[in-house]
Amino acid sequence: MSPDLDALFMDRTVALSREHMQAGHGGPFGAVVVMDGQVVAEGWNQVTSTNDPTAHAEVVAIRRACTALGRFDLRGATLYSSCEPCPMCLAAALWARVDRIVYGNTRQDAAAIGFDDAPFYAEMSRAPAITMAQMEHRPSAAAASVFGEWAAKPDKVAY
Amino acid sequence: MSPDLDALFMDRTVALSREHMQAGHGGPFGAVVVMDGQVVAEGWNQVTSTNDPTAHAEVVAIRRACTALGRFDLRGATLYSSCEPCPMCLAAALWARVDRIVYGNTRQDAAAIGFDDAPFYAEMSRAPAITMAQMEHRPSAAAASVFGEWAAKPDKVAY
Repeated sequence: MSPDLDALFMDRTVALSREHMQAGHGGPFGAVVVMDGQVVAEGWNQVTSTNDPTAHAEVVAIRRACTALGRFDLRGATLYSSCEPCPMCLAAALWARVDRIVYGNTRQDAAAIGFDDAPFYAEMSRAPAITMAQMEHRPSAAAASVFGEWAAKPDKVAY
Repeated sequence: MSPDLDALFMDRTVALSREHMQAGHGGPFGAVVVMDGQVVAEGWNQVTSTNDPTAHAEVVAIRRACTALGRFDLRGATLYSSCEPCPMCLAAALWARVDRIVYGNTRQDAAAIGFDDAPFYAEMSRAPAITMAQMEHRPSAAAASVFGEWAAKPDKVAY
């Protein structure tokens, strides 16, 4: 993708972040999913306006892009985000199998205005011994059995 | 919470994981959000049936719990999951501010049946120098300006 297109799509993500912050929809974050040089979906933070802690700009854009394309993966896509994705959004992008992620502000910039992306990244390295929630492993023969049933399921749709 | 209640809620998450796997809704994963000893919401993996790569059991349960409670945080809640949350789901739980996470199968168990939780955890430690997608930082004065506007916004709803 040419640098000019990157600049164009980044301008759009930043415009979304400002517009929806000003409208009171949530935090100052925008995202755009692009495939073959075309915008497939746009997203913006809607956590506080929809009471959904997972409604970060990138998650919203990824969900909308998959709906638009009618499939659960985004191979070949670029995810533009006005800020470095938090661990939730980065893992969502990896599950969606995007090829490329381009972002403007960093997790440190997010920390400076009160967002927890940076400590959450630290928690990821500590997991399952995380400190921001009590985390308990209860080994379960029944849960293990279900995994065995999945492995043996002849008609499963892998993802 | 008493061990007996933990066992009861874990049994329910495992039952959900089996039931919805068998129904073809997605992977073998279930989750339950409990507040004050009561089930607030249940979730199960729906990635392949809804074309939503973010529709993991825990994300679905968290979203439903927030909808049920009419707020964007789950302080005081326990999240039960049939499997150790992947980085997306763990960060979603942290953003939701759950108090406690209890799980059965581990990320290694998930790896053994073909799921990418373990390598995605490795990516989290490497980010932003991740290897499973091309990640590019494009510093943006405009994006930085929006963050400044958020910091100065008098009527923002923090989360």
